[in-house]
Amino acid sequence: MTDLSDPLPLAQALIRCASVTPADAGAQDALAGMLERLGFTIHRLRFGEIENLFARMGTDGPHVCFAGHTDVVPVGAANWHSDPFGGEVRDGVLYGRGACDMKGAIAAFVAAVAQHGTQGQPRGSISFLITGDEEGPAVDGTVKVLEWMQAHSQVPDFCLVGEPTCPVRLGDMVKIGRRGSVNMTVTVHGTQGHVAYPHRADNPVHRLVSALAALTAAPVDAGTDWFEPSTLQVTSIDVGNAATNVIPAAARAALNIRFNDAHSGASLTAWVRATLARYAERFDLDVSISGESFVTKPGPQVEILRRAIQGATGIDPKLDTGGGTSDARFIANYCPVAEFGLVGATMHQADERVPVAELRDLARIYRDIIAAFLA
Amino acid sequence: MTDLSDPLPLAQALIRCASVTPADAGAQDALAGMLERLGFTIHRLRFGEIENLFARMGTDGPHVCFAGHTDVVPVGAANWHSDPFGGEVRDGVLYGRGACDMKGAIAAFVAAVAQHGTQGQPRGSISFLITGDEEGPAVDGTVKVLEWMQAHSQVPDFCLVGEPTCPVRLGDMVKIGRRGSVNMTVTVHGTQGHVAYPHRADNPVHRLVSALAALTAAPVDAGTDWFEPSTLQVTSIDVGNAATNVIPAAARAALNIRFNDAHSGASLTAWVRATLARYAERFDLDVSISGESFVTKPGPQVEILRRAIQGATGIDPKLDTGGGTSDARFIANYCPVAEFGLVGATMHQADERVPVAELRDLARIYRDIIAAFLA
Repeated sequence: MTDLSDPLPLAQALIRCASVTPADAGAQDALAGMLERLGFTIHRLRFGEIENLFARMGTDGPHVCFAGHTDVVPVGAANWHSDPFGGEVRDGVLYGRGACDMKGAIAAFVAAVAQHGTQGQPRGSISFLITGDEEGPAVDGTVKVLEWMQAHSQVPDFCLVGEPTCPVRLGDMVKIGRRGSVNMTVTVHGTQGHVAYPHRADNPVHRLVSALAALTAAPVDAGTDWFEPSTLQVTSIDVGNAATNVIPAAARAALNIRFNDAHSGASLTAWVRATLARYAERFDLDVSISGESFVTKPGPQVEILRRAIQGATGIDPKLDTGGGTSDARFIANYCPVAEFGLVGATMHQADERVPVAELRDLARIYRDIIAAFLA
Repeated sequence: MTDLSDPLPLAQALIRCASVTPADAGAQDALAGMLERLGFTIHRLRFGEIENLFARMGTDGPHVCFAGHTDVVPVGAANWHSDPFGGEVRDGVLYGRGACDMKGAIAAFVAAVAQHGTQGQPRGSISFLITGDEEGPAVDGTVKVLEWMQAHSQVPDFCLVGEPTCPVRLGDMVKIGRRGSVNMTVTVHGTQGHVAYPHRADNPVHRLVSALAALTAAPVDAGTDWFEPSTLQVTSIDVGNAATNVIPAAARAALNIRFNDAHSGASLTAWVRATLARYAERFDLDVSISGESFVTKPGPQVEILRRAIQGATGIDPKLDTGGGTSDARFIANYCPVAEFGLVGATMHQADERVPVAELRDLARIYRDIIAAFLA
């Protein structure tokens, strides 16, 4: 039997399942087998074509949950130096798709539970919220598992997401929140006409350009206590008018705003709408809020993470809220959440990898976090 | 034999040739036949697939030239109430494609020559510069006929273009010039990146939007003595980036400037280039000058037109330089040119038409113009 207290063989077993979203390829079977041996009660939760899993050991509080995903992004470029699904170790480094994002972290948390050593009967509860749809549309994954957890009174007191948060060295960054993200599509309507007679037409391109220039002229804000300034990026403008002598009838733009806790998707929609209205009389604004911003402000829970990381690495982690989005945005609707995992430098790249020593250090940190939360 | 002093049968003969650009359909044969009967020397000038014609009566100066085109735009919408190439007269109105733009005016000028009555031996010279490619690309038409005329010492002292210049009533407008027109395509280059990390990218859309907002923020100028203000219209912006999380590498816009005699294609290119350079470091600017602006400032020649129009209609024509472009822009490189013709309200439309009385009034005006130029 595999030694469950060492994350290396566990990570190798998971990497050897080619679980490119939405495929599972046996990854959750492998994980469920490890967790059953540790005394967890397993709930396999299939939504649509996605395999998900909730597993819990213990029934009392406090309840600390580890959240992660067994799916991985495609292999991509073919210039790997070893089988992306081989889990090969060379010179003390484990190679494979998912090594750092985030099968390595799942393995480290399993090992941490084994090292915690209260098999089957912890003080409090430890759980796993595992999805197979984090790298995909994220519709049939964490969102639905959380709904199930809510319906079955399984909402934890704190959730740790194992995304690779460290830029350079293990321990250098904890994500205590994430910016929100909203996509908007603007269509400004005008009146088509001949370019030689602009007074008989109404050029929607000019109105759109003026509105976008106003929206991008200054920073959205100056940042907040725990967040960098919000950013607005116009990602496309598409008119599609090939006739050089025609003023077009409509002009369309797409933009994305990554926003901090000074805003909400609704407040930004109101701001963009008001700015557009200054320049255009007739326009459509389609809004899709990918996620609101959230933050778990420093306090006792974040302090547990800091101490565990400092104890194992000597590093005082930066408490950050930057970067893209993760499933933590869904979890934040239910309980406090923070993210800590491996160094993410090779995530989504060819030759994704993690030093075996880093994997084992992460397991020790997770073990100390579990111990502190359940103390 | 058709009475050459009445423009109606001449216009009908021309309309009955379905000479949709680049087809000639016998139109120039018909016209050449009329001009031969009047004593003109005919030069048929075929360039590429286009039939053109230069005809002159007399060899001395002064030399007044009538310029026009026998080609017409397509029939377009099928809701005509008579055959577009039938030349039908109903209730005193002649119907057909080209009735006002500009087979009617050609017929009126032929009739004017016949009425002028110095068959074969005028004092001075009368000529026709006729192309079959005014409504098309205008490459194998007037431009090449002018080159031929230059090479054969046939450049006139004054040229009258028979485009339909009158907005409401015959005589209400003479075009003494035209604005220039230039098309530009701008491509701004940036650095592609993820929208979540804009500091690692360089969004070319923002640079382009700022530059276009600056170019369109204020009128290009306030107009000049004989021209309305110049106008700049952005006709399209096309980025083509469908990924909402990607900052694109480049952004492209097309614009058109219709400009007065305060500018040239070159001066406007310099202005646009300098404005772009304020907002973008790397950009491409492609420029296509369709025509420079030109004006035949009021003086003895324009006065001849005014008096002939006033004599026949009682109307003092507005001396205008607005509207689109015409072949007059090419002629202006060789000699003074002005444009006067029928009411253009139905040009390019279904049921294009001209009242027969208007056609005959135009012939009388042209007759008086010829007489005054050759007096």
